[in-house]
Amino acid sequence: MSRQIAPEPIAPATFAPFGDVLEAEGTPDRLINAGLCGRFHDRARLDFGPDGRAGISIFRAELRRLPLALDLLERHPEGSQAFVPMSADGFLVVVAPDAGGVPGRPRAFLTRPGQGVNILRNTWHGVLSPLAGSGLFAVIDRIGPGANLEEHRPAEPWIIG
Amino acid sequence: MSRQIAPEPIAPATFAPFGDVLEAEGTPDRLINAGLCGRFHDRARLDFGPDGRAGISIFRAELRRLPLALDLLERHPEGSQAFVPMSADGFLVVVAPDAGGVPGRPRAFLTRPGQGVNILRNTWHGVLSPLAGSGLFAVIDRIGPGANLEEHRPAEPWIIG
Repeated sequence: MSRQIAPEPIAPATFAPFGDVLEAEGTPDRLINAGLCGRFHDRARLDFGPDGRAGISIFRAELRRLPLALDLLERHPEGSQAFVPMSADGFLVVVAPDAGGVPGRPRAFLTRPGQGVNILRNTWHGVLSPLAGSGLFAVIDRIGPGANLEEHRPAEPWIIG
Repeated sequence: MSRQIAPEPIAPATFAPFGDVLEAEGTPDRLINAGLCGRFHDRARLDFGPDGRAGISIFRAELRRLPLALDLLERHPEGSQAFVPMSADGFLVVVAPDAGGVPGRPRAFLTRPGQGVNILRNTWHGVLSPLAGSGLFAVIDRIGPGANLEEHRPAEPWIIG
């Protein structure tokens, strides 16, 4: 089986098994502020478990370049994790289905400027990989007790790009 | 009393009575992803009350220009509200202390690129006012029952700028 994975443009339908695309597409759910602002309401399936709460952290990540050797996947059993880029740049999102407790074949998605993602609780994903811009992200994830991290290193890396 | 209000650069200490500055300043709390990413951990005083939960919505706001006539302030009695710009641009944040159930004299803050804000529960603020960029924001606020909105129109507008 080829270790090569070609990134595909992200779309809500294809990404749905793994998470949510956070974007202002189509008609806003509400107009607020005397019509000057559209609200696209409650677009993330947040889940912080019974003993967690939401928190906002800021991540500052090194820019990456394609092709990228993916040698680590992780998942958070206790909570979802949303990534909102703080510059108008797309980034690389790698996710994988679970295959009996380890990641199956990953899929790679490219976001467009103005899009964020929310990764569902307990979903395998690669590490944060901005390809351009400031590398700054607001991350909305679980604050609470417990390690909430499971890591997997594939026997040989996947090549994304 | 002058109705003119000069914006000041935002700083965590001066903004603290009204909310949190969300930024990657100083040393990260943790290095993750084999040192490729710094995590500035849990930087917002989120508060969604006893019957609310966190949600992520996307706001698409018209760009505004200074000087700006501020004729509406609002507050959310049931929850905090965080604004994360999705482009690398500063924006205008107007807040006001409470003065017996109505807003006192507002203060205006300008953020820098790479900064967001979290406005504390029940804190008077102006509407979202991007001055440049895409006008896209991720908003982390309360999802739950009730109106959660109180509005105040000053007898004459404040002039910001």
